[in-house]
Amino acid sequence: MGSLGISGLAHLFGVLAFILLLVWLLHYREGIEYDSDNGFRVFNVHPLLMYSGFIFLAGEGMMAFQTIPSERRVRKFVHMALHLIAIILGVVGLCAVFKFHDMSHIPHLYTLHSWIGIATFCFFGLQWLFGFGVFMLQGASPATRAKVLPWHKVFGRALLFLAVCAAETGLMEKHSFLQLKPYQRESYLVNFTGLAILLFGAFVNFSIVIS
Amino acid sequence: MGSLGISGLAHLFGVLAFILLLVWLLHYREGIEYDSDNGFRVFNVHPLLMYSGFIFLAGEGMMAFQTIPSERRVRKFVHMALHLIAIILGVVGLCAVFKFHDMSHIPHLYTLHSWIGIATFCFFGLQWLFGFGVFMLQGASPATRAKVLPWHKVFGRALLFLAVCAAETGLMEKHSFLQLKPYQRESYLVNFTGLAILLFGAFVNFSIVIS
Repeated sequence: MGSLGISGLAHLFGVLAFILLLVWLLHYREGIEYDSDNGFRVFNVHPLLMYSGFIFLAGEGMMAFQTIPSERRVRKFVHMALHLIAIILGVVGLCAVFKFHDMSHIPHLYTLHSWIGIATFCFFGLQWLFGFGVFMLQGASPATRAKVLPWHKVFGRALLFLAVCAAETGLMEKHSFLQLKPYQRESYLVNFTGLAILLFGAFVNFSIVIS
Repeated sequence: MGSLGISGLAHLFGVLAFILLLVWLLHYREGIEYDSDNGFRVFNVHPLLMYSGFIFLAGEGMMAFQTIPSERRVRKFVHMALHLIAIILGVVGLCAVFKFHDMSHIPHLYTLHSWIGIATFCFFGLQWLFGFGVFMLQGASPATRAKVLPWHKVFGRALLFLAVCAAETGLMEKHSFLQLKPYQRESYLVNFTGLAILLFGAFVNFSIVIS
């Protein structure tokens, strides 16, 4: 099973997680709307954009060198651009949860999920700036670029791991807040969404390893 | 900064997480006792053994090839033995949470944490059996062993990632069940324990990558 087969599985679980998330937020929850008077509709922008905007696009960006059938220059541009869009959508997703907290008078950044999430996002931003300066603008000599590339990859994979960890703790937190009962359909839906995100992360990781 | 420096940081965060966990369970919670009538004392065996027994020993086992100052044969044995002890202590830790559920009439295996945890443990057992058969008993030819070794490493690192993810979701779950308030000391303690476990996992990973 080659790199393309494994990235195919990554796409599959990535899209599956997106669909499960949409069903959850639109059918079982209050729906999704940034400019709403209903705080829960505002909140729901957060899981949607943090996964489908941030994690999914970043994962696809990481695999771009294997999946884009074009020359290296184009792949590199797609890699950079997908990560940039991921960051922009991630910022909107973060704003949504801060807005929800303000609307509902909930303090910010006190749970483990929020700590992992905000740390991941900051390091991700730094990693993007570093990559843009060194590899896109070629702010370093070819020898230095070749030397730092393995580290760029190692940190990128560690950040994907952190981002998935943030998603899992976030789903866990919401599951507890909602006091979902065992054997309740919504409980299974949230858990399967978490598993799909986990498998997306695992297959992105494997597809990069074997490429 | 060499592999030994990075594994030094891994030891540091690993021991830090162990101390924070002990302070939490002994000072803020009910204490730790498998044969107790107090269900919470039984439960507390679970986080203690799943982290210090399972994750910490498995992580140390993964780094044994860099950290044990001896010949390869000894390192390999320590690698295998630490993982075996990790599995045995992990089984006791799992029994503790099942016993607590039975004592408190809570259903088993309905949260995302439990799904990730039990899947990790099963795959970990399979990985150990595979490794024992192929590398310790040398049940495969040297050529085959050389071919599967990179996959053994990749899966091992993915399992460490899953185990850390299980720990983070577990801490998150307990944090929510306890309804810890923001800016409460115990809340910070649980979060810092989670961060220390995360950093232990990250530095174990980095130390293996650069070795």
